[in-house]
Formats: sequence, structure tokens, C-alpha cells
Amino acid sequence: MSFDRLDELGRRLEALEHAQAMLGVDEAVMMPTGGGEKRAESMSVLAGMVHEMATAPEVADWLAEAEGQDLGAIQQRAVAEFRRVHTNMTCLSGDFVRRQVKARMRAEQLWREMRPRSDWAGFLPAFEQVVALAREEARMRAEATGLAPYDAMMDQYDPGNRVADIAPVFARLSAFLTDFVPEALEAQARRDSARPKRKLAGPFPIDRQKALGMAMMEALGFDFAHGRLDVSHHPFCGGVPSDVRMTTRYDTADFLSALMGTLHETGHALYEQGLPAEWSHWPVGRARGMAFHESQSLFVEMQLARSPEFWAWGLPLLGEHLGPEAVSDWTVEDILGHVHRIERGLIRVDADEATYPLHIILRFELEQGLIDGTLAPADIPEAWDAGMRASLGLSTRDDPANGPMQDVHWPSGAFGYFPSYTQGALIAAQLRAAMARDIPDLDDHVREGRFVSLNDWRREKIWSLASTLSTPDLLVAATGEPLNPGYFEDHLKARYLGA
Amino acid sequence: MSFDRLDELGRRLEALEHAQAMLGVDEAVMMPTGGGEKRAESMSVLAGMVHEMATAPEVADWLAEAEGQDLGAIQQRAVAEFRRVHTNMTCLSGDFVRRQVKARMRAEQLWREMRPRSDWAGFLPAFEQVVALAREEARMRAEATGLAPYDAMMDQYDPGNRVADIAPVFARLSAFLTDFVPEALEAQARRDSARPKRKLAGPFPIDRQKALGMAMMEALGFDFAHGRLDVSHHPFCGGVPSDVRMTTRYDTADFLSALMGTLHETGHALYEQGLPAEWSHWPVGRARGMAFHESQSLFVEMQLARSPEFWAWGLPLLGEHLGPEAVSDWTVEDILGHVHRIERGLIRVDADEATYPLHIILRFELEQGLIDGTLAPADIPEAWDAGMRASLGLSTRDDPANGPMQDVHWPSGAFGYFPSYTQGALIAAQLRAAMARDIPDLDDHVREGRFVSLNDWRREKIWSLASTLSTPDLLVAATGEPLNPGYFEDHLKARYLGA
Repeated sequence: MSFDRLDELGRRLEALEHAQAMLGVDEAVMMPTGGGEKRAESMSVLAGMVHEMATAPEVADWLAEAEGQDLGAIQQRAVAEFRRVHTNMTCLSGDFVRRQVKARMRAEQLWREMRPRSDWAGFLPAFEQVVALAREEARMRAEATGLAPYDAMMDQYDPGNRVADIAPVFARLSAFLTDFVPEALEAQARRDSARPKRKLAGPFPIDRQKALGMAMMEALGFDFAHGRLDVSHHPFCGGVPSDVRMTTRYDTADFLSALMGTLHETGHALYEQGLPAEWSHWPVGRARGMAFHESQSLFVEMQLARSPEFWAWGLPLLGEHLGPEAVSDWTVEDILGHVHRIERGLIRVDADEATYPLHIILRFELEQGLIDGTLAPADIPEAWDAGMRASLGLSTRDDPANGPMQDVHWPSGAFGYFPSYTQGALIAAQLRAAMARDIPDLDDHVREGRFVSLNDWRREKIWSLASTLSTPDLLVAATGEPLNPGYFEDHLKARYLGA
Repeated sequence: MSFDRLDELGRRLEALEHAQAMLGVDEAVMMPTGGGEKRAESMSVLAGMVHEMATAPEVADWLAEAEGQDLGAIQQRAVAEFRRVHTNMTCLSGDFVRRQVKARMRAEQLWREMRPRSDWAGFLPAFEQVVALAREEARMRAEATGLAPYDAMMDQYDPGNRVADIAPVFARLSAFLTDFVPEALEAQARRDSARPKRKLAGPFPIDRQKALGMAMMEALGFDFAHGRLDVSHHPFCGGVPSDVRMTTRYDTADFLSALMGTLHETGHALYEQGLPAEWSHWPVGRARGMAFHESQSLFVEMQLARSPEFWAWGLPLLGEHLGPEAVSDWTVEDILGHVHRIERGLIRVDADEATYPLHIILRFELEQGLIDGTLAPADIPEAWDAGMRASLGLSTRDDPANGPMQDVHWPSGAFGYFPSYTQGALIAAQLRAAMARDIPDLDDHVREGRFVSLNDWRREKIWSLASTLSTPDLLVAATGEPLNPGYFEDHLKARYLGA
């Protein structure tokens, strides 16, 4: 009966979260500017209701009772995940959360104002407050979960993530990439001089780009009866599993930017659409954390959609949808010349798959210092500059806007989130390798645009398991081994060095 | 303090209703079919929360206390309207509402199934149950409000509406129209033979029709910073006052169908956008009932947008947006030949402004019989046929699908709603006449596409008052007299008889 009460609570929370998700999509895709104020008010009231309902005193009793009930295996997992979410929601006092929301809002606001002026000093006081509260938060989360403070922060986004496991992996990867990137850049220069990069000859009308994107989405398994593709300023994959709302943004001079973005979001969307519908109102029915979510988008974008096999299938689609004149004499190699670019840069979100992890690893290291107090916020610019110079040979000394001020994560207090991005890239490569063991002619499937068996594999190994396992356990269950950066390294070597 | 509690409750309800409104819009405009099941589930949970929250036992205490508080005038009105809504929501027992929802769902389902087959006998048992429950409902509402049963039903949609006031107005109007319609049809035949109706020479591309509609909406005062125009199967005006979502449906062969629909919905939208934003979370801040809402849409559609003055301004816009070739040699008279058509027909929603009230008056009379028990559901087809023969000279004896089975209102249990439509048409004409007394050069404003003073008048007299007055009191306050069908009759005579 206590389980039934949790089940009923889950349905109520699901309805509110459905509303929040769809209002969020509408805000980005449809809402006129003047609707923003009242929308924000409504969203804040709904968020308050969700919190109130999920943390009501009786919920703790139901949980304790349900943990003593004789339940089936999946219901036990459901209760455990209810408990985890409940602990995460209740371990901070209401007063603390209010102080934190205020400090974050102030820091975000200042960040928006100071970043264009590259004014670190102007931003610092607000940032110091956010960091102080994040330390406090990490301490409280650590106390509630029995984890180390930074582990407790990561655990929110990826249950089971521990510095002890991630740090050695990232250290190895960092060493690898520091050598690999210059090597790959040299190889790229040689390729460029042998075969210059071709210019895209736009304009590519938006309706044609959209038809192309949708054709690829459909072939990849996106279910348009349970989702759609729209336009927004920042592309995202939102909505709910029964109705996944993807967005992209078109550039008429370059169809590849929207297309690769669309394919990335398609990976997120397939995960959502593949979750078990019957558990959708339980926390355990949700996708398993940020790392696996990113692994799904990167699997489609990096492992599939930037591969020569994919373009063997995809090239004719370009002509079909963009018009025969657009890319009529292009070869797969011409496309790969665009989608296999490595470039040293200051900005994480613009980085390619080879340099991206170096941006993440720097943040991962600095974050730990910020949370354990060994690094003061005031010392971040210097540490950032040193890190960037060591890994990518670039300085941000006089350019904090393109250094530690580039991301919204820290101003908004999201510490412990960054590692998930690179963990996702590593998981994607590891999944590709495991899948290739089970589907020996995998490349032929991709070459022929047959993605069913690839999706069946991911559905069986990942999507259908939802949040029944921790992030590391899910990876072991799916691939037979813990996080192993070797697959990602091999992938980069094969793609960029032809090794 | 009790008022503060009501105020806070209002904010919570507003947030949920904001979500309901926007999810409803999304469902009609954006949602893929497969999203429907989970959407319905979420909507039903949200509706349950609204009901639970609004009828919680403590709300009755807050109301009683607030009624004893020393409050300002507007707060007193706010409490009174809170009370009215509360009474309407609480006067039916939970058990009764559940029985009723079930019966209505069954009747609606059967109606959808039996209507295409024109099978009255198959529909009757479910309809009898709905009527029986509506009688019970009317009795309970009467008890809670101290009104007569049918008055109590009408009062939900238009507070203050009483049969004693409406019936004589409708009787006079019915007598007038029974003579007027044949006369107007003769005049129309004479006009048609003197100047044949011109054929619209489409196709009219949808993007051009949309630009035309938006240009007219904007000129009429629609604020696109607080609303937008989209497409849905059934056109509507939804959303919330700060973000009004209008829809239309395009026919490439006939731009007038979408345009007149758009202008009708614009009237609804202007009312919503004109409500006082600071009261948006109180029931008293909402639009005053269905009759006034319809009066606003019909004011724009019938009083303005089908007038020769409007087309003196609008005709050049057609060329501008539809392309010069589309209607280049059309005159205002050619357009009026399309938008001033009278035709006897069986279907209410297809009826013109002159025959429409006859459809309503028939339903109004039959409804009263159904609710007071003097008319049995089984006798409806005969009574319907007799009414249609008397008023429009048409028989529905062998055609219940186009007789009493044509509307969803009765299967869904909405008795007392129909009179609002015609009341709205009468109010629109009465407002036009009152406005013309205050703005003597009103026609010149319209001829020049200057709608600001017309909107200022409606804002001052109607929109800004929201639900502070009952429907009849608002009408008296705005026009100086109670509902007077003379203005509508004069309007019809001037338009169709040139009198």
C-alpha cells in the first residue's frame, strides 16, 4: 500500500513535470516575448508544487514502509530510485535552497552582464558567493549520502560516479590527447594540402534542410508519431518520452551545422523514446543520468554520423533533399573533410571531439579544488590559463570571457556536471566497440542505412533498463567492462590518423 | 490575512490553469498523435489538482473570514467572485460529478458513433441519462444559489442571466426574424440578379493569407508581443491573457473563410489582452462570461469586418498581401456580396447572422423543457422538427443527424450555454450603437483603419471591468440600458434591406 502511494505520487509528479517540460518547449519554440513574465511566474509555482509534493513529510514514511514491503524486483528498484531522488531533494534545507537560488540568480545575471566586457573582477564577488554555497551544499549532500563532497555533487547527475574512478581515466586521456592533438593536426594539414576542403555552395533553403534532417531522423529510428522537429535559438531535445520535442537552428549557408546538430539531438531523442513507457511515472523509469544521455547523442553524432560508412548511405540523400545541383559532384571524402576537423580553440561548445575532453578535464580538476577549498575562486583565471597552455597551448590570461567566464554552469552553481560530457564520449566509443562484437557486419548496416539492429542493441542494453542500475553498473552490464578510454582513443586514431 | 490566503491560492490556481491552457493549445497546434494518451492523463491529473485545491475545506473558512474583513472595493468584488466560483465548484458532490463525467463520456462517444448514421434511437438511452443527471445538477445548483434550476445552469456561463429577462427578448427577436428572413432573401435575390456574386479566383497561397490576416489583426489592435496566430483543425482563441494563442484554418480556394474566422477570433483575443493584468490570478480578473466574450468576437466580425466601411479600408490590403492579380478589379460591393449572404440551413455553425438566432432560440426553448421535465428526451426530434419548420421552413423529420444530433453541447451535458451565443450577437449590436453615440465619426475611423478609439471605448467599458459586474449589469453600465434586441434588428435591416 505504501508502494501504491508512491506510485500515485509518481503519477501526480509526472503530470506536473509533463506540464513543465512542455511549457519549456513552448517557451523556446513558440512563446512571444511578452508572455515571458507570466510564464516564469507559472513555472516557478509549478516547480514549488513539485518540490512540496515530492518532499511532503508523509513521503518519507511511505518510503520507509515500502522499503520493508515484500515487492517484486522492479518495484524494489523503483523504491530505491524514489529514495535516491528523495534524499537529493530533501538533504538541503528550504532556507538554504532559497539563499542558493538568490545567489545563483545574482551570479547568472552578473555573468551575462560582465562576460561581454570580459570583466572577471566584476563577476568575482558573486562567483565567490556561489562557490561558498556550493561547498556548503556539497557538505550537506555528502552527509546525506555518505559520499565525499565532490562525489556527492557528481552523484546527482550520474549516480555512482566517483572521483576515484574518473580521475585516472581522465588523467590517461589527457596524456593521450596532449600528444594526439598535434599529431592529428599535422595529419590534417597533410590531407588538406593533398585535397583542399571544398566550399559549401549554398544557399540551402530551410525547408529542404528540414526535409533532409527529418529523413535522416526517420531512418535512424525517430518516431514522428511521438515527437517532432522545430526551430529554436539554442537547439535542444525536450518534451516527454511519449512526445519528444527536438529543435535545431538553420544556417542557409551551411547545411551541415543544422544537420549535425539534428543528428546529435536525435541520439538524445531515441533514448527518451526507447524508455519503458510503463515506468514513465517512476524516477526509475527515467534516463540514467547525464553521461549516458550524452553517450546516446554522441553515439549517433560521432560514432555514426561522422563516419565514412554513414556518408556512403547519406550522400545520395543530400542530392535528393537539397536539390541535385547542391552537392552533385561531392564525394564522401568531401563531406568527411568538413565533419572531421580538429582545431585548437578556447571555447568548449565549439570544440571538436578530440580537443573537447581537454576542456572538460580542466574544468573537472578546477571544480574539485573549488569544492574542497584548495582553490580559491580568485585564483581561477591563473589556473585556467595554466591548464589551457599545458593542454592546448593557448593562453586566456587577458581573455577571461573566453576562459573561465565562457560557461553558464558555474555561475548557475552546477558543479559536478562537466565530467558527464566526456564520460559520455568515452561511453559512446565503448558501446560502439561492444556492439561491433555482437553485430559483426555493423559497418554494412550503417552503409546501407539499416539502423534497426543498432537500435535494438541499445534498446536492450541501455534504453529499456532506464535507471535500474547506476551509471558505472549500466556500463559494465552493457559492455562487459568499466569505463575504458582505450576505445575512444582507438576511435580517434582510426579517424584522424588513419591508424 | 484570509484575503491573502485566497490571493495566494489564486496564484497557485493561475499557474495550473496557465499550464492547462498552454497544453491545450499545444495539443491542437503542435502535438503528434502519439502524444495524446499521456497528454490526456496529465491533463486529467492537473484538472484534479485544480479541483482539489479550489475546493479544499479550508477555502470555505478563508472565504467566510474574508467576507467579514474590512477590504477595499475591488477586493470585496474579488472575494464575491471567489465565492461564486467556489459555490459552483462545491455544490455538486464528488460522487455525483464522477457519475456525470462517466455518463457524459458515454454519451459523447455514442454521439460520435451514431451521428454519422443519423441513429437517434441508438443515441437516446445515453442522452436520457445525461438529461436525467442534468436535471439533478440543475436542482443542486438551484439549491446552492437560490435560483430557479435553468437559471442556475445559465448562471454558470453568464452570471445574472435569467429566463425572465432573456425569454421576452428572444420571443420578440424570433417574431422579427420569422418575417425578416424571407424579406431579406428576396432582397438578396434581387441584388444577385442585378449584380451576380463573383467567383474568388484562387489559389491563394497560405503564407499570403496568413500575412493578410496578421496585418488586419495588428491594425485591429492585436498585440503580437502577447500572442500569436497558428493553424489548427478547429479554429480557436486560447492561451492566457498575457500570451493569447489564436488559430485559424486555411482554404487555398477561399481566403475569406480563414480571414473571417481570424477576425472573429481576434475579437475574443482583444478581450483577453485587454483584461487587467494585475487581477489575472483572481476569478474577478477573468472575462465576464460567454455572452460578453461572444459579443466581442461578433463585434469585430459582424459589426466591423462585414461592414462596407471596413472594406473601404480593407480592400487595398487584399491586393497588398494576396498579390495584385488576385482581386485587382474587385470592388467593396463584390466583397460584400460574399460576406453578406443569408441562407436557410439546418446547421447552426454554418448559419449566417440573421438565421443563427433562430437555431439558438429553438435550443433555448427545448433545453428549458428538458431541465424542468416538461419535455422528454424521446420527444426532442419531433419538437425540433416542429421548431425548424415554424422558424425556417425546414424539416429534420428524417434527418436527426442534421437536427438534434448536430451539436456536441447536449451530449457533453452543457445545458444553459446556447443562449449566450445570441445574447452575444445582440450585445455586439447594442455596443456598436452606444459607441456611435460616444464617437460620432465612428464610421470614418473604420473607413480609415483607425481602431484605437474603438478599442479604448471597449477597454474602458468592458475589458477593464473584467468580472466585477454581472452580465446584465455590465451591459447596463456600458450602454445605459438592459438587453435590447432593437439594435440588432436595426443592424440587420440596414445591412440586408438597406433600410
